[in-house]
Amino acid sequence: MKLASLKDGRDGRLVVVSRDLSRCVPVPTVATTLQAALDDWARAAPLLAAAALALDAGDQGAGVMPFDPAACAAPLPRAYQWADGSAYVNHVELVRRARGAELPESFWHDPLLYQGGSDTLLGPCDPIRLADDQGWGIDFEGEIAVITDDVPMGVSETAAAGHIALLMLVNDVSLRGLIPGELAKGFGFFQSKPSSAFSPVAVTPDDLGDAWDGGRVHRPLLSFVNGEPFGRPDAGRDMTFDFPRLIAHAARTRPLGAGTIIGSGTVSNKQGTGHGSAIADGGVGYACLAEVRMIETIRDGQPTTPFLRFGDRVRLEMEDAEGRSIFGAIDQTVTRYPGP
Amino acid sequence: MKLASLKDGRDGRLVVVSRDLSRCVPVPTVATTLQAALDDWARAAPLLAAAALALDAGDQGAGVMPFDPAACAAPLPRAYQWADGSAYVNHVELVRRARGAELPESFWHDPLLYQGGSDTLLGPCDPIRLADDQGWGIDFEGEIAVITDDVPMGVSETAAAGHIALLMLVNDVSLRGLIPGELAKGFGFFQSKPSSAFSPVAVTPDDLGDAWDGGRVHRPLLSFVNGEPFGRPDAGRDMTFDFPRLIAHAARTRPLGAGTIIGSGTVSNKQGTGHGSAIADGGVGYACLAEVRMIETIRDGQPTTPFLRFGDRVRLEMEDAEGRSIFGAIDQTVTRYPGP
Repeated sequence: MKLASLKDGRDGRLVVVSRDLSRCVPVPTVATTLQAALDDWARAAPLLAAAALALDAGDQGAGVMPFDPAACAAPLPRAYQWADGSAYVNHVELVRRARGAELPESFWHDPLLYQGGSDTLLGPCDPIRLADDQGWGIDFEGEIAVITDDVPMGVSETAAAGHIALLMLVNDVSLRGLIPGELAKGFGFFQSKPSSAFSPVAVTPDDLGDAWDGGRVHRPLLSFVNGEPFGRPDAGRDMTFDFPRLIAHAARTRPLGAGTIIGSGTVSNKQGTGHGSAIADGGVGYACLAEVRMIETIRDGQPTTPFLRFGDRVRLEMEDAEGRSIFGAIDQTVTRYPGP
Repeated sequence: MKLASLKDGRDGRLVVVSRDLSRCVPVPTVATTLQAALDDWARAAPLLAAAALALDAGDQGAGVMPFDPAACAAPLPRAYQWADGSAYVNHVELVRRARGAELPESFWHDPLLYQGGSDTLLGPCDPIRLADDQGWGIDFEGEIAVITDDVPMGVSETAAAGHIALLMLVNDVSLRGLIPGELAKGFGFFQSKPSSAFSPVAVTPDDLGDAWDGGRVHRPLLSFVNGEPFGRPDAGRDMTFDFPRLIAHAARTRPLGAGTIIGSGTVSNKQGTGHGSAIADGGVGYACLAEVRMIETIRDGQPTTPFLRFGDRVRLEMEDAEGRSIFGAIDQTVTRYPGP
C-alpha cells in the first residue's frame, strides 16, 4: 500500500493513496497522522491495507479525493530520527579519490551512518530555500529510505528486516561548500545538511513486488536537473550495506523509536568502469552533482558542472517495471531565503 | 515554573511541578504532553504559569499529587531534535591534549555541535542499559540543555535568546571506547552516543532568577559517582559559546522545530590551572570521567580512574543559592542489557 501525509498542521493528515497515485482517502478511524499509525503499527497496518484495497477496487466513498503530490508534506513532516547511511561505497570512494585520499579498507565492512536533523522535513514539492547559492555549493542527493517500527537495541540483521514498515525516496540536500570545514571539526555534518525532502508517498515493502529483495530496492533511481535526465543508477546495485544491516548498525547501542527513518546514502553505480560515467557519456549517470564533478576533476583537473543556483529544479522518481511511478516524484526548485 | 512528564505512553503526561518539587498537577485543559505545549507555546506558557502559581500558593485541588522523580520520563521522552554543543572549550582542549593533538584556533570562534539521537530519551532515574561495560568505556557527561520553540532559519544571536522556552540537566551518556573509531570515519558520533537522560523537571528561564543571565546558567553542576562527590564546576564559567550562540549556529541553514533540545556540552572549568583539578586535589572536579582520566594521562602517563561498570551509579543535580534542587536529580545506575 501507499501512504501520504497531506499538509495539515505540524504532522500532516494521513491518507491512503491508490496504486496509480490518482486518488486518496483519509483514514481517521485508524490514525490521523502517519506517526500515530507507526506508534501502533501492528494494529494500524492491516486496517490501512484494507482501506487501500477498497480504494484500488474503485471505492468512491466519503472522503475519497484526487491525490495531489503538491499538497503533500513529507510522509513524516517531522520525525524523531533521521539517520542517513552511505551504503553505496562507490560514492564514498569517488569523493575521496577526487581529493586524493585513499578509502580505508574498513569502509567495505563497517557502515557509515550520520545522525541527520529530523525536526523540519520538506514535502516533495517544497522549495529548497537557502540564503546562499554561491559559496554553499547546493547539491541534491538521491536516496532510498526506510521507516521502521520500534527496533530493540542489539537487533540482529535478520530480525531488523522485519522492522521495515515503509520505504520512500529522499533528496538529502547537501551544502558541499560547508562540508569540508564541518567534517574537519570532527563532529560530522550539521549546517552542511539542511532539511531533507521526501517523496509524496511511502510504500510498504510488498508494494514493490519483485523489486524488493528484503534488503534492497532493485529499480533505477531517476534524476533530472532542469528537466534534463541526469541519472538512472540502479538502487539495487553496488549497495554494499543493505537496509537490515544499516538498521542493525544504528541499533547497536540504543533502541530505535517507531518512525525512525534510515537512509541509504546517495545511490551510485560503478557501471563496470572506474567510477561510473555520465548519461552524456553513455553511462547511467549519478544521483548527485558532486559525483559528476568528481569525475570531471579526476579527468580534467577541475569540475565544470555547476552546483545548483536559485531557480534550478531537481526531480527524483522511481518507476516500476511497467513505467508507473512508485513513490510519486520529488520535484523541487531552489529559491532564495531572504532571512527571518 | 517547573514542568515534568510523568511516564505514560510514548510522550508522557505533562504536569506542572511546585517550586519545592514536592507536588505536581496535570493540566489537561492546557496540554496533555510537553510537546503539545511547545507546539503552541505562546498560548500554553501563560496558562501553565498560572497553574504553577496556584500550586505554589497551596492549591490542593483535584489532580494535585505528590511529585516523584522516579515516576518521570525525560521532559521530552522523544524529541524531534537533540543537538549537542561542546561549548566549554576547556573540555575539548583537554581531550585533545591527552592524545597529543593541538586545539585549532578556530575552535574558540566556531562552535562545535553534533546531531544526537532523540527518538528514545531516558528519564532521570532510568537505568543506563548497555551490553558491554568493558571495551565500550561507559562515561557520563553532565550538561545543561535548553528547549526552544520554533526558531526561524538564519536567526540572529539576539533573537535566538527569545526562543529559549525551558532549561534542563542532561546526562549525555558516552561510550569512550567507541568514539575514536567512529570519529575517524568522519561522520561524527552514532553508536558512541547511546540514549541521553534528562532531569526530572524542565524550568523556564525566570525560574532560575539571577542565576540566568540570558545565555548561561551561573550555578555549579554537582555530580556524584557511587555517592562520592565528583564535581561541582560552575556552568556559567568558561562556557565559550552561550545558548543563543549555539541556537543561531544550529539554525544557520534550516529552521528549528518547536521542542528542539540544544545541549551545552560537558561543563568544564579551567579553575585557574592548566586544565582544572579534581575535588580530591582541591579543585571543583569535573562533569565526566574522561576529563579526570585525561589529567591522569597528562600527569602520570596513564589513567587510573575507571569508566563506569555495571552497578555503578551517577547523580547530577544543581542547587540554587539557598541549596534547593532546581531541576531535581538525574540518578542512574548502569545495568547490563542482555540483548533483545
